[in-house]
Amino acid sequence: MQRICVDMDEVMADTLGEHIRRYNRTFDEDVTPYDLVGKGLWEITPLERRQQLRAFLDAEDFFEDLALIPGAQDVLKDLSARFDIFIATQAMAVPNSLGPKYRWLQRHFPFIPPANYVFCGDKRILRADYLIDDLPKNLLRFEGQGLLYTAPHNLTATGFVRVDNWLQVAQYFAGVPG
Amino acid sequence: MQRICVDMDEVMADTLGEHIRRYNRTFDEDVTPYDLVGKGLWEITPLERRQQLRAFLDAEDFFEDLALIPGAQDVLKDLSARFDIFIATQAMAVPNSLGPKYRWLQRHFPFIPPANYVFCGDKRILRADYLIDDLPKNLLRFEGQGLLYTAPHNLTATGFVRVDNWLQVAQYFAGVPG
Repeated sequence: MQRICVDMDEVMADTLGEHIRRYNRTFDEDVTPYDLVGKGLWEITPLERRQQLRAFLDAEDFFEDLALIPGAQDVLKDLSARFDIFIATQAMAVPNSLGPKYRWLQRHFPFIPPANYVFCGDKRILRADYLIDDLPKNLLRFEGQGLLYTAPHNLTATGFVRVDNWLQVAQYFAGVPG
Repeated sequence: MQRICVDMDEVMADTLGEHIRRYNRTFDEDVTPYDLVGKGLWEITPLERRQQLRAFLDAEDFFEDLALIPGAQDVLKDLSARFDIFIATQAMAVPNSLGPKYRWLQRHFPFIPPANYVFCGDKRILRADYLIDDLPKNLLRFEGQGLLYTAPHNLTATGFVRVDNWLQVAQYFAGVPG
């Protein structure tokens, strides 16, 4: 059975949406994802606000209740019948996210066993056939086939197999033997 | 640079020692590691105490302050100059261990960056050249070269390259190109 690793932030969970929401609320701004084509929220944030931008992520409740990326549940449920699904998330840069990420996955993806969660940093460590991830640097380090999941910051990245949404993920793997 | 994954419990941290200590204190027993040749603490624990045995692991403070396995720090520090060292620990069966394991590693192994921590379940997911682990089942699933780190429960296991202590780990890798 082929193995697919799936990133969490921006692929399964709308982390950016929550980050923008807290940013706008705190600084009375009106940033939208459309302001972030080809860049991260960090890059449009004035220097004097960057410490606070980081503090949002460190808050105990930040990762507890993120919105789902539409289609992630249904498509992963279908794929898990034919593929070995692992969740591979960069959790080590924000240690307060470890517990919340575990609980979020259990709540929203009960069909994926915790033994298949991988909380890591550098994704070179993953032995899998596929990795679905929004970060080009993760795909470049991965030795299998990468799929770049579209997010505002990566819209200008080229040279990757790209999926814009979970429907396209389903279509891609429809043609792949499990 | 070749990559070595290192398990935490019984390899870097004396998890069994703490488990036995809490067991003996709670039940006024006198179990020692010598009572556990070829078996886990679970197997010698009467059924009516097993829920408590599990509860010890779930306690918030269990993984916070485990004793070090002698030699782990010095040998890993030396090896990290020649090898790519990752820590790969089964943390998903005890989600309360996630934060404490992170903090323990930072405190005792500051020379290993958090990006090289892997909190996982099934160790099939690891892409590395070597895995040092006390659990035969983890080594059987791993695709690289496994080294069985001796612990009471695995003393009867055969068919593995075995290391009894960190001195033997250092000796093994002295003959391996980095």
